[in-house]
Amino acid sequence: MFLPLDGDGELYLQLLRALRSAVRDGRLLAGTRLPATRALAAELKLSRNTVLAAYELLCAEQLAVARSGSGTFVADALPRHRQQPRAEPVDAQSAYAARLRRLPPLPLPTRRSDLPIDFQYGEPMTHLALFTSWSRALTHAAARAQPGYPAPQGSLHLRAQIVAHLGRRRGVACEADDVVIVNGTQQAFSVLARVLLDEGDRVVVEEPGYALAKHCLMAHGAEVVAVPVGADGLEVARLPSAPPARMIVVTPSHQFPLGVTLSLPMRQALLQHAARNGSWIVEDDYDGEFGFEGRALPALRALDAGDRVIYIGTFSKTILPSLRLGYIVCPRSLRDDIVLAKRTMDVASSGIEQQALARFMASGAFDRHLKRTALELRRRRRALNDGLAAQCGERLVPQDSGTGMHLVAWLPGFDAAAVRRLIAKAEQRGLGLHSLAPHYESTPPMQALLIGYAATSVSQIHKATCLLGESLDAVTRLGRREHETAGAGGRPRLAGVRRVARSN
Amino acid sequence: MFLPLDGDGELYLQLLRALRSAVRDGRLLAGTRLPATRALAAELKLSRNTVLAAYELLCAEQLAVARSGSGTFVADALPRHRQQPRAEPVDAQSAYAARLRRLPPLPLPTRRSDLPIDFQYGEPMTHLALFTSWSRALTHAAARAQPGYPAPQGSLHLRAQIVAHLGRRRGVACEADDVVIVNGTQQAFSVLARVLLDEGDRVVVEEPGYALAKHCLMAHGAEVVAVPVGADGLEVARLPSAPPARMIVVTPSHQFPLGVTLSLPMRQALLQHAARNGSWIVEDDYDGEFGFEGRALPALRALDAGDRVIYIGTFSKTILPSLRLGYIVCPRSLRDDIVLAKRTMDVASSGIEQQALARFMASGAFDRHLKRTALELRRRRRALNDGLAAQCGERLVPQDSGTGMHLVAWLPGFDAAAVRRLIAKAEQRGLGLHSLAPHYESTPPMQALLIGYAATSVSQIHKATCLLGESLDAVTRLGRREHETAGAGGRPRLAGVRRVARSN
Repeated sequence: MFLPLDGDGELYLQLLRALRSAVRDGRLLAGTRLPATRALAAELKLSRNTVLAAYELLCAEQLAVARSGSGTFVADALPRHRQQPRAEPVDAQSAYAARLRRLPPLPLPTRRSDLPIDFQYGEPMTHLALFTSWSRALTHAAARAQPGYPAPQGSLHLRAQIVAHLGRRRGVACEADDVVIVNGTQQAFSVLARVLLDEGDRVVVEEPGYALAKHCLMAHGAEVVAVPVGADGLEVARLPSAPPARMIVVTPSHQFPLGVTLSLPMRQALLQHAARNGSWIVEDDYDGEFGFEGRALPALRALDAGDRVIYIGTFSKTILPSLRLGYIVCPRSLRDDIVLAKRTMDVASSGIEQQALARFMASGAFDRHLKRTALELRRRRRALNDGLAAQCGERLVPQDSGTGMHLVAWLPGFDAAAVRRLIAKAEQRGLGLHSLAPHYESTPPMQALLIGYAATSVSQIHKATCLLGESLDAVTRLGRREHETAGAGGRPRLAGVRRVARSN
Repeated sequence: MFLPLDGDGELYLQLLRALRSAVRDGRLLAGTRLPATRALAAELKLSRNTVLAAYELLCAEQLAVARSGSGTFVADALPRHRQQPRAEPVDAQSAYAARLRRLPPLPLPTRRSDLPIDFQYGEPMTHLALFTSWSRALTHAAARAQPGYPAPQGSLHLRAQIVAHLGRRRGVACEADDVVIVNGTQQAFSVLARVLLDEGDRVVVEEPGYALAKHCLMAHGAEVVAVPVGADGLEVARLPSAPPARMIVVTPSHQFPLGVTLSLPMRQALLQHAARNGSWIVEDDYDGEFGFEGRALPALRALDAGDRVIYIGTFSKTILPSLRLGYIVCPRSLRDDIVLAKRTMDVASSGIEQQALARFMASGAFDRHLKRTALELRRRRRALNDGLAAQCGERLVPQDSGTGMHLVAWLPGFDAAAVRRLIAKAEQRGLGLHSLAPHYESTPPMQALLIGYAATSVSQIHKATCLLGESLDAVTRLGRREHETAGAGGRPRLAGVRRVARSN
């Protein structure tokens, strides 16, 4: 049977799509018996489980029927609308939808499961003990689930745990009344956009910066201004003032993606700017939990006498991305609006997951998990820095920030084409690499790699840095002539993204 | 010690607030030892667990410190900002926030845990077996959690299960590609408002109708027009046409709150109206899962040749409200915008809960739960109808719709004041009652009670209908003179909410 797989994503889904088309196009007629799973697996060189999974989904979609003992058959009567062609494209139905359609593609790396090692970033470190203790917390919470709707502001028990955690680990003093539980950082941005911004209002984001938050603000209709990040973090002197931003989004403790820290004088200047211009500061502390080598600065929120800082945090980076829970610590003056917006948007976050998280924190399991993760991340970071120094020498300049799950490695003298060649060379050797460039609005002043090490063991890091060194060799040989002709090279100005503020 | 409880909500929270104020006002000085839990419990006539819970939260908020073996002490140094007065109110910061502040209060009943029996509605029926099997599904899913972010459209496995379920139980034929997982009905409305409506666009809702959805649309800035519901459901002839509505929100299978069904001719008229005017129909099938006594009509979506119907469903009403999962079955032409809006709003719904739900459905546990629930609800509905007929006679006219978890009982001749007196009389007897009136935008044409029976056993229903009869006796004696003078009374026109469309 001719079942072409389209090569996109998981094999069982490819097979499902191929079967669906065959049924729809009439190549597989109603009532026909599908090939035995073992035979089809052999024919297509797939595992039998892949075929079983595709058949199961085909049955769930009512395109086929499994008859026990005799096999799987194409359904006799296809659901009516499947026989009609549909899906004429429509115009965007709202200004928001039109803006959604204009968003640039997301620079989020897709996990390259076909490569033996991938320096992907953005997904946290996980280990077996975490799944066990998280599963235990969930079971406990499910067995004690309350029959009613959860409170829009979030579980008081969880909010109290977050308050204690922030006080202990991030120097943030607040009360449970100031905390609103949301479904991760992204929903925090959605709620804040609704409550604080009208269409056309100006918002400052960092350049380079976190694309998904920027998309949320752009889709909302804000005028998004990207202000460069220097060695001391956001260049506060370059903030626009006529008109000033209604909202300034920063990642002060560990800038994403550059990893720099907003210095204390910059923090004070930023708070003064906000107080003078009536701007709200959104402090996104997305991965400040993993312990700093050296002294960490207090959170902006801890220095904020003027009540202009909205602190947001997430558990996606510390526990699991599939756990959609985060929080907003808000100025008291905004609290009621934020809770009402959350209720209006989706009533409340999952009650069982909130209770499980509160228990996970109260039992000490969360702190143990963070400690263990921080230790392991530190080992990996050191292995990475050592490996890069030994294998890549001067050609690649890592910028270590002493915390987090990724670092930026500058590539002096590289242009975008050379980075693409480097990535291709590494891929041939089974190593996934990712460029920093997609995190800029405009052309970056220097090319770099964004190297994540949360999903890579120390021994994989040893091997990966060797492969990276070989790939650099290959690209450098290839590109030496162009490079020498252009006279590029020399030490990069680290994090020296000197560019005037611009709108987009 | 003087610790006045404010009587609002749970006792341990009342005590927490009292302790907080005592610490903040300096009545409890830094470093002071708090009374032993047993002693304070005795003094305030509270259970010791209540005092323990309040102390634990006080510690979590860093206002007190527990020293093992020696008791709980007021913290030595209070967090800085707690010593400053804060929270100057600010103006609404956006048009959305301003609209939020203007929303009327929600008519959601609060669970009266102080009353022995409460005819509350809106929370589903739960039983021990559900918690056990749901807890098992969660444990299984947590142990197999994927490290990455869940897909914005939702788990394919879950979407395939929903497709099979809708085909089997609701006559809705669709494919997994047409389904988008969201955090319950409310998020479905938020996403659809973003994708389909600009500020000022006209939306039709039912009168009476579901307040929280209406709030979402009003906060979004839509012009919300309430169109009356008659004995055949939404009065399609009264839909506005100049300009026509961009969106029409209906609950066709079991209108909320009246319980009527949109008749087949009305369904066809509605679809024609939508096709003629380019309106989108949002079909909210909020509790169509519990099996109808008698024949159920196919969903609007199943009749929709013009691809104008967006079908939304929820698991809050069938499993647990604290499970924030629902879905949108969308026309293919809107699918990409809806998925992008969901991603932009909060990335995706909880991965573990989606997997658990998929397994819960695939294993047959969901169908068993629905069957069991439907049987028990039928028993209760019959007990309720029998009890009301026996105890309340002509004074109260129940309108049974043969499905769901609540019914409307009309009170011919009652005015709003009489309903308040009836509710007060019932409360004196330990029975919680709820008026239908808050679900109307304007004054209802006739007073009624909204009687929920999902949280009330058959034996409680027997008792409750007796208490309701006694309460009616008491009020009727009280009000007979006024009533006779006014000349009100007579058979109500069931669901005859004859009122012209108006904007709000």
